[in-house]
Amino acid sequence: MTQLHAFGLGIATKSAAGDTLDVYYPAPIANVEGALADMLTDVNGELDAAALNTLENQLAGAGADEQAAIARRLKDAGSTVVATSLADNQAPQNVAEAYLKLHMLSHRLVRPHGTKLDGLFPLLPNVAWSNEGPISLDELPDRQFDARLRGQIIEVASVDKFPKMTNYVVPKGVRIAHTARVRLGAYLGEGTTVMHEGFINFNAGTEGPGMIEGRISAGVWVGAGSDLGGGCSTMGTLSGGGDIVISVGKECLIGANAGLGIPLGDRCTIEAGLFITAGTKVTMLDGARKPVETVSARDLAKRSDLLFRRNSTTGVVECLTNRSAIELNELLHANN
Amino acid sequence: MTQLHAFGLGIATKSAAGDTLDVYYPAPIANVEGALADMLTDVNGELDAAALNTLENQLAGAGADEQAAIARRLKDAGSTVVATSLADNQAPQNVAEAYLKLHMLSHRLVRPHGTKLDGLFPLLPNVAWSNEGPISLDELPDRQFDARLRGQIIEVASVDKFPKMTNYVVPKGVRIAHTARVRLGAYLGEGTTVMHEGFINFNAGTEGPGMIEGRISAGVWVGAGSDLGGGCSTMGTLSGGGDIVISVGKECLIGANAGLGIPLGDRCTIEAGLFITAGTKVTMLDGARKPVETVSARDLAKRSDLLFRRNSTTGVVECLTNRSAIELNELLHANN
Amino acid sequence: MTQLHAFGLGIATKSAAGDTLDVYYPAPIANVEGALADMLTDVNGELDAAALNTLENQLAGAGADEQAAIARRLKDAGSTVVATSLADNQAPQNVAEAYLKLHMLSHRLVRPHGTKLDGLFPLLPNVAWSNEGPISLDELPDRQFDARLRGQIIEVASVDKFPKMTNYVVPKGVRIAHTARVRLGAYLGEGTTVMHEGFINFNAGTEGPGMIEGRISAGVWVGAGSDLGGGCSTMGTLSGGGDIVISVGKECLIGANAGLGIPLGDRCTIEAGLFITAGTKVTMLDGARKPVETVSARDLAKRSDLLFRRNSTTGVVECLTNRSAIELNELLHANN
Repeated sequence: MTQLHAFGLGIATKSAAGDTLDVYYPAPIANVEGALADMLTDVNGELDAAALNTLENQLAGAGADEQAAIARRLKDAGSTVVATSLADNQAPQNVAEAYLKLHMLSHRLVRPHGTKLDGLFPLLPNVAWSNEGPISLDELPDRQFDARLRGQIIEVASVDKFPKMTNYVVPKGVRIAHTARVRLGAYLGEGTTVMHEGFINFNAGTEGPGMIEGRISAGVWVGAGSDLGGGCSTMGTLSGGGDIVISVGKECLIGANAGLGIPLGDRCTIEAGLFITAGTKVTMLDGARKPVETVSARDLAKRSDLLFRRNSTTGVVECLTNRSAIELNELLHANN
Repeated sequence: MTQLHAFGLGIATKSAAGDTLDVYYPAPIANVEGALADMLTDVNGELDAAALNTLENQLAGAGADEQAAIARRLKDAGSTVVATSLADNQAPQNVAEAYLKLHMLSHRLVRPHGTKLDGLFPLLPNVAWSNEGPISLDELPDRQFDARLRGQIIEVASVDKFPKMTNYVVPKGVRIAHTARVRLGAYLGEGTTVMHEGFINFNAGTEGPGMIEGRISAGVWVGAGSDLGGGCSTMGTLSGGGDIVISVGKECLIGANAGLGIPLGDRCTIEAGLFITAGTKVTMLDGARKPVETVSARDLAKRSDLLFRRNSTTGVVECLTNRSAIELNELLHANN
Repeated sequence: MTQLHAFGLGIATKSAAGDTLDVYYPAPIANVEGALADMLTDVNGELDAAALNTLENQLAGAGADEQAAIARRLKDAGSTVVATSLADNQAPQNVAEAYLKLHMLSHRLVRPHGTKLDGLFPLLPNVAWSNEGPISLDELPDRQFDARLRGQIIEVASVDKFPKMTNYVVPKGVRIAHTARVRLGAYLGEGTTVMHEGFINFNAGTEGPGMIEGRISAGVWVGAGSDLGGGCSTMGTLSGGGDIVISVGKECLIGANAGLGIPLGDRCTIEAGLFITAGTKVTMLDGARKPVETVSARDLAKRSDLLFRRNSTTGVVECLTNRSAIELNELLHANN
């Protein structure tokens, strides 16, 4: 039986040279099955009015009313209409496929790491994101000059390979105080609040609910009920985190200006201002606050119920637990 | 004698469903007394052209020329005109009252904590703040699609219960390098500069003058002549500060990437990179740099002339003072 | 022989009172020599259509085709056209000169500290930077009210003496994820990526390539191949750095949430979360990790191949080197 990884009807912006700068998919779908999948598997590329008309009728006939309505509205589009059909979860091959995958994440059709993004960076063009839409960097200086001649200004909000998410989709049940800091491709679970100092990269995000006032780097996942304090840092796979994929479990609290270089289990706390990297030597304290052993933070990856602090009378980085010394020893050496 | 807590004439934006999304008050007034208060006490709700005409004449008759001029200009408004009259300092009851209170703060009519804001969050709708004005989240996807069909983009700058201050009022004598980080309801005293990394929440702010490159959380007040270094954090009552209301006295310096979880007195310094929470154990040094006693930072709340640092040869968090050991002992145990 | 420090043809925005709020120079030139310099040395001030016509012909005659083309296009300008000619590298004398110098930096015609900026702050007007262009703060409240009456909003993005760079020029080969954090007057070398948390002030910047996720303060220079981690801080000459001009050498790595108060040599690392100020006492370790001596960080200014960390089992700030104890001693006392 045919199954499609994803399908989207959208509107592309092209440069004067004919290069695709972005694609907006109002309502992409994923894991398409059955007759609809059969029908859509070869629907790919640019669609003219006649093709859209045919597609609309086919979609309506297959009972895909929402997609049929989109096809109908797209007949009024002033610019290029594209269909993108992804049979399998392969690395993206062109800009339209890359944008469909980023939309899948932000529309919550897949979680981070749920769709392959290999080779994404070289595929995506670097674009000036402006109040006049995406502009090719080759055309930008001339257009800026022209606008000034008319007494206007082109507001260039970003020069980047990724646009901001909210100009494509705002998922239900979220607040994002300052949208410039959430890229298309971020996944924001319901109940997520991203404050002004929060940041979420693509292929990263939150299960929700949660209060995000720190930075969620590319690839990082934050579990339900966890809060990231103002200015806190999570190390990304793109930026020094190396091979370790950082994550935060459920009901964790990362303090303001703190930092995290290991994946955390559930109900962990890092005190404000403390940065835990994989190599940080951590003195483990048992339930009676007695030191038991010193370990590298990487050995505590995914352990739950830990509280990290720097003892302010000794400067020692400590990890408080509610376990006995014997339990701690067993836990830490379980995989030896 | 009648006294009004506040009064404002403004323009409301409504959703297609008729819900008020925001109200803009160009020149609200506070602590209104006498005949003007008597006249305005029942002026509340939506005003049509006839009502505005009557009000203009009444205001002119009472000598309230600025308010009369506003009533006159509002007759040209394309959207809903509202009057909001707050007899007492009560918790806000609707969106128009909530917005009037936020305006009072940003127009410097009251300082933070000077007007009751209980129940503010559930009152305020979550709104998409865009280049086309406030948009209801229910209407947003359709409007985004429509704009794209026309070859345009709706720039969604924020999805939040609070708009940015500067789209409502820019008080005199301030610089705000990046306005997305100052919410309506912030109080910026004259001479305040908020740099790109600065942030000021509602019901919080600065006496001025001061250089703000860090984050002023909800409820926090910063005294005259104090500087907040880049990326520094103040714990808010909404975000982990608990019951303690954080404040910074006059002529303090919070270093870059530092943090503060207690109210500070005057002329205090926290060195760059050091986070002081209420529970931090601090070793007090006398004027000769001799350790006298170790106390919790919360016991130093509102004390003046303190310098906090982490000794880089021992890791101990120290507080330098210019007092003798005896004076320090007396000071710390004065309330025992 | 005549030599000009710089020359630019541009478009000025003026307030209703006739004050210049900004000048946009599409293609300024520097170090102009020979006949072209002779011709341009007295071309200064506002130009009408006739003057532009003459200038266009003169420029074409001198073989300055790009400048001639600019003069030609400027004949269509709806607002004031200005020419600014700087004979020598003197402090700027008016807004047009100040803006030409800021353009020189962002167009990579000079590196930071390569053009005199003394007296810049009092020269530059504080301006509301909006979607309708620069607006005088005196006019802002009325214009905001007028826009609201029409059902529109003036988006006030910044209230500052400096505009954002990208609304004037985007140099080749850069990405700037969030442009509100790069001021006109920043220098971004080719291959520079400024992420959302990055910031670059005027008269500061990067040689490129480099990944900038931290804050480059006024006056600070970052060498080729160096990365600044998320939220890291460099102390500026304007903000506490005092007389020391901070810089970062080649191939350095400043960790996330770290900080820097001394100029660094090449191939240095500061671990995530560690703030090194000039006064930090640093314990030097030799190549065998043995402590050799404790010095102030300021004594390590411009030294290469250093790694700074806070020992997490002792709280001591250490500097790791690959040198023997004897070499370290010689190095540290070479200038005694």
